[in-house]
Amino acid sequence: MTTPIELRSDNTAGVAAEILDAVAAANTGSALAYGGDDWTERMRRVVGDVFEFSDVAVFPVVSGTAANSLGLSAMCPPWGAVLCHESAHIVRSEGGATSMFSGGAVMQGLPGPGSKLEPAGLARALESVRWGDPHESQPAVLSLTSPTDRGAVYSMDEVAALSAVARARGLKVHLDGARLANALVALGCTPADLTWRAGVDVVSLGAMKNGSLSTDAIVCFDPAVAEQLVYRTKRAGHVASKMRFQSAQIEAYLTDGRWLMWAANANARMAQLVQGLGAFGVAPLASPDANMAFFGVGEAVAARLAEAGLLFYGVGDGAIRLVTSFATTPAEIDDAVERWRSVLAG
Amino acid sequence: MTTPIELRSDNTAGVAAEILDAVAAANTGSALAYGGDDWTERMRRVVGDVFEFSDVAVFPVVSGTAANSLGLSAMCPPWGAVLCHESAHIVRSEGGATSMFSGGAVMQGLPGPGSKLEPAGLARALESVRWGDPHESQPAVLSLTSPTDRGAVYSMDEVAALSAVARARGLKVHLDGARLANALVALGCTPADLTWRAGVDVVSLGAMKNGSLSTDAIVCFDPAVAEQLVYRTKRAGHVASKMRFQSAQIEAYLTDGRWLMWAANANARMAQLVQGLGAFGVAPLASPDANMAFFGVGEAVAARLAEAGLLFYGVGDGAIRLVTSFATTPAEIDDAVERWRSVLAG
Amino acid sequence: MTTPIELRSDNTAGVAAEILDAVAAANTGSALAYGGDDWTERMRRVVGDVFEFSDVAVFPVVSGTAANSLGLSAMCPPWGAVLCHESAHIVRSEGGATSMFSGGAVMQGLPGPGSKLEPAGLARALESVRWGDPHESQPAVLSLTSPTDRGAVYSMDEVAALSAVARARGLKVHLDGARLANALVALGCTPADLTWRAGVDVVSLGAMKNGSLSTDAIVCFDPAVAEQLVYRTKRAGHVASKMRFQSAQIEAYLTDGRWLMWAANANARMAQLVQGLGAFGVAPLASPDANMAFFGVGEAVAARLAEAGLLFYGVGDGAIRLVTSFATTPAEIDDAVERWRSVLAG
Amino acid sequence: MTTPIELRSDNTAGVAAEILDAVAAANTGSALAYGGDDWTERMRRVVGDVFEFSDVAVFPVVSGTAANSLGLSAMCPPWGAVLCHESAHIVRSEGGATSMFSGGAVMQGLPGPGSKLEPAGLARALESVRWGDPHESQPAVLSLTSPTDRGAVYSMDEVAALSAVARARGLKVHLDGARLANALVALGCTPADLTWRAGVDVVSLGAMKNGSLSTDAIVCFDPAVAEQLVYRTKRAGHVASKMRFQSAQIEAYLTDGRWLMWAANANARMAQLVQGLGAFGVAPLASPDANMAFFGVGEAVAARLAEAGLLFYGVGDGAIRLVTSFATTPAEIDDAVERWRSVLAG
Repeated sequence: MTTPIELRSDNTAGVAAEILDAVAAANTGSALAYGGDDWTERMRRVVGDVFEFSDVAVFPVVSGTAANSLGLSAMCPPWGAVLCHESAHIVRSEGGATSMFSGGAVMQGLPGPGSKLEPAGLARALESVRWGDPHESQPAVLSLTSPTDRGAVYSMDEVAALSAVARARGLKVHLDGARLANALVALGCTPADLTWRAGVDVVSLGAMKNGSLSTDAIVCFDPAVAEQLVYRTKRAGHVASKMRFQSAQIEAYLTDGRWLMWAANANARMAQLVQGLGAFGVAPLASPDANMAFFGVGEAVAARLAEAGLLFYGVGDGAIRLVTSFATTPAEIDDAVERWRSVLAG
Repeated sequence: MTTPIELRSDNTAGVAAEILDAVAAANTGSALAYGGDDWTERMRRVVGDVFEFSDVAVFPVVSGTAANSLGLSAMCPPWGAVLCHESAHIVRSEGGATSMFSGGAVMQGLPGPGSKLEPAGLARALESVRWGDPHESQPAVLSLTSPTDRGAVYSMDEVAALSAVARARGLKVHLDGARLANALVALGCTPADLTWRAGVDVVSLGAMKNGSLSTDAIVCFDPAVAEQLVYRTKRAGHVASKMRFQSAQIEAYLTDGRWLMWAANANARMAQLVQGLGAFGVAPLASPDANMAFFGVGEAVAARLAEAGLLFYGVGDGAIRLVTSFATTPAEIDDAVERWRSVLAG
Repeated sequence: MTTPIELRSDNTAGVAAEILDAVAAANTGSALAYGGDDWTERMRRVVGDVFEFSDVAVFPVVSGTAANSLGLSAMCPPWGAVLCHESAHIVRSEGGATSMFSGGAVMQGLPGPGSKLEPAGLARALESVRWGDPHESQPAVLSLTSPTDRGAVYSMDEVAALSAVARARGLKVHLDGARLANALVALGCTPADLTWRAGVDVVSLGAMKNGSLSTDAIVCFDPAVAEQLVYRTKRAGHVASKMRFQSAQIEAYLTDGRWLMWAANANARMAQLVQGLGAFGVAPLASPDANMAFFGVGEAVAARLAEAGLLFYGVGDGAIRLVTSFATTPAEIDDAVERWRSVLAG
Repeated sequence: MTTPIELRSDNTAGVAAEILDAVAAANTGSALAYGGDDWTERMRRVVGDVFEFSDVAVFPVVSGTAANSLGLSAMCPPWGAVLCHESAHIVRSEGGATSMFSGGAVMQGLPGPGSKLEPAGLARALESVRWGDPHESQPAVLSLTSPTDRGAVYSMDEVAALSAVARARGLKVHLDGARLANALVALGCTPADLTWRAGVDVVSLGAMKNGSLSTDAIVCFDPAVAEQLVYRTKRAGHVASKMRFQSAQIEAYLTDGRWLMWAANANARMAQLVQGLGAFGVAPLASPDANMAFFGVGEAVAARLAEAGLLFYGVGDGAIRLVTSFATTPAEIDDAVERWRSVLAG
């Protein structure tokens, strides 16, 4: 039997060795629960250093859905609306988590080319709002996803321009960074430049898809939002009692640029794949900015690729989605390209 | 400087070696996210075996608060009431989590001697309800905690009697098992006998305080509740993407009776402590059933015990709380007794 | 100064004389609060007779928003989705009421020509759902509005076809009948034919816009939904203590076909307006089915119509919305047509 | 058959003639919906005059439950606690409305003699709070009820003292004034003195029990709370479309001191009853401050009083509750006293 090649999602990968080591290293003696421990204090300093924001507040939570929905619930009043691209994970794949945690806020998906919002489209949407009219959910947050759920990365200028449009109307800005490290690597910019310097108030850090074991985190630059999150994370059951083991993961993740190296591997493997397939004329539906690409192969070819051991998801109409991760190896990609070639030749 | 002796809480302990090993062992290759993996399937079988309930549903979540509040939210309509002892964690220490997740259900703390509810008191409370009157929150769930937050353990007969009173009025029964293993060891009964055979529908498993790394779990014997929890856990952000690492912990926890051995150590250390102190006339406020005891030492002695390196919590009026864990050693307890003797002698 | 002619909305009209008389007549002696009164019992029988459904449950509430959102919250689980046309009042003009009352359900606005949903479009939307996947809000209710917020009326066959598509997937069906009487008059069908016989489970009766003083009502054909509404209406503060005065309005409204006569006047006045304007070539953007029409007059003409004393709302791009009511007189419409003619001539 | 004498509750009474007249008078021509009408503007001025607070915000809602729970939801964060007496309507008779509207806040009923809270007891409760600890619901509002649900009236000094204790800890203060006019008459003080001058931020006006037809109102002295209520009342469906008919009631209610005259009658009738019964040795369990009294008559006498046509509620243990209203006549009370005498003689 052929060994399968994992290209379904970056969340099917395991845990980075350095993360697991850090967890094991934290297993020494006793420590206060719920974050009153040394690891958590140290982790906060590391996040502050990496984001160049010493007063940053950090809330480890167990999933990206938790990071997004709890963060948004602290940014949006119950009668408010969160604006985002219509393909966003918060609209399509979180089971209404934000509406629940916020006590009734709604999400409004806006169109935009290539899964990205445009400043002009956002401005039009905001102009048509009946501000102050309680009949209409009041836009209170702009939520950007980068890379998007279609694999595109917003440039720093795009983030800054969208933030500026939003902030001019009093909205706060949220960044779903489920693959933040992949975006940073793709852009070659600093975490600070892509977040608070570009007008972003709250970030979902996105550690889970890039090597973490059991924690993601909310990174918060707005003290009023942070004050709410102290209570909101607890009553959501997201304050781990043995917090040191979660904090140790985040600390290890951000130390020595590991998160960027891991993301760089994921992005490089996707580039390798696209280049390899290009050699025999196969091109993705859109040039991938990071570690995700879509190919319109048709149902028949998709079936044969699956038979050849490639693991991926179909997304309808004969298109398939492929994702690489920190754990994908160059040899796996070479192998995938070869199997693809055989299928087409076959 | 004196080495401190940890007696604050069982959640300050680290992770059991077997749990950490299981996590490391699960870090092999890729696996489907969100529970579609082999570890999760195996874990479900193990829970079914241990609880002698093959159709059990299990939902790993990151904390006991999550286990309690999500479980209860699936058992209680938004207009319902959860009845519990007035000292219960769900009332006093979860920030209103159950009211939030349920969409407005209320918790009603009832009195009861020694932190335990009594069937007669529960029956009286239920008799005074205006059933079917929408002006009054309708009792829908009885939530028991065993051991209680004061360290007392309900006998099997007590659980069965309370369940019977509740079920006669149509209530479901929830067991906050934050220290379930300690109760099982104290009673010497099987998990099945103390839960579903005694009328319990949903259990918070309580792995965190007894050696787990990053997961507790909801154990559910009621299929209608389980169906809700599929959605409720997800939209609460409690479905870990790399679920295999959570499931592996629960599997390791329950395998080979480890959870009971660990709890047996905690209970035995508390008994050792009480016996040791008794030798010079110090007695707890109530004889501890499991791994937690309270002593009325007075503020002055409490301060000197703290100076002597004993770590514990004051609970007001000169009383202190001591808790042992799976990790507490006989030598530590001997040491604690000796320091206590010195303080009193001093 | 010119007397203004009211064409802004049917909710700017006053109260029908028969409604006010019924309220005054109910002001006799004392009566049990919260619905335990004779008027409420009689009202329930009248609704049962008019809808040919003797076991109907009726819940008077103070507004159409309350009727819609409370009704929907009892039909949709917190993790569910309500499907409706993207122009629906529940999406655009109720401030997220349904998400709030349901504890987090989301509304999904679907496109459809002329403000109406089509069975094929609904079927496509339902086919693309990942059923049973907790990552995706699960469609649980189809909400139709008839007449729509653009004034179009679904035929009985359209309602039945859409309901059939929804029910085949296990969805319940809700009818926002904010102008239900106008639809019934337009179609010439019975209330039963347009509602439960066509697959509708719950109806917002829509009395407010058609002559009521202070109450609308939820009309419910599904006993499981009705049982929830007993509690949901109370804890929303929508169970009026002096319920007899609300029930008396609904009774008077439905007695002797008054609601239909009043709606017939509203529809006839709109037809008169369209015919009058047609005489000099002015046509609505779409032929109105009931008592609401839109005209693309341009900003300049709109301004002059306003100066001439016509009261209406602009809806953007030079279009205006005109609505007639039970209280609109033939003379007012003649007058409006004349003023319009003068504006165009001027 | 004997004519029954209504003493069950003040909410079983009808509507005051002046209120009904005001509604009829408002039925003239058309008016903007949702509060953009002259009646609402005038009503706001009248409330401002009566409460000597020109910037007051007023929100007509359909019930006292709505007034309480919406008001509280705008004063208390979702993770907060509302402190009140354990007999309070908001805890016992509103089906968890406040927990629902607030998104999870909890209510904490405190003991206190004679159904009233005491400053010392409140201070103790606040001292024991772990402030800033997210495990514990954080007290954010003190809610007083006056007259209480047992008929006692807080003096101005008591309100001021309790408010001072609460405000010193940063709590806001809410007054459930379901029978506010009865308290004002009992105390002989001004509305301003009993509310904002005594530290109260938000008041439930309590019109329903004292002659209103279909509206109560939230009276708000805190602009930040008022801003929230604009949205919270709308998305709760409590903004009546034909608001003028609700506003006209509040205006008529407060004009020419009618509310106080009506309450004065209710209080006087209760005093007449107590005096009349006292003549033959029957005394209430506590001397009534306003229009409600309880008598410990025993089940047998209670049954015979009921046979004699007195309408009242049993409250357990042979005690009964009697309430007078604006509509109770001196002759009815004389009659009730005579029947009571006959029962005892019989």
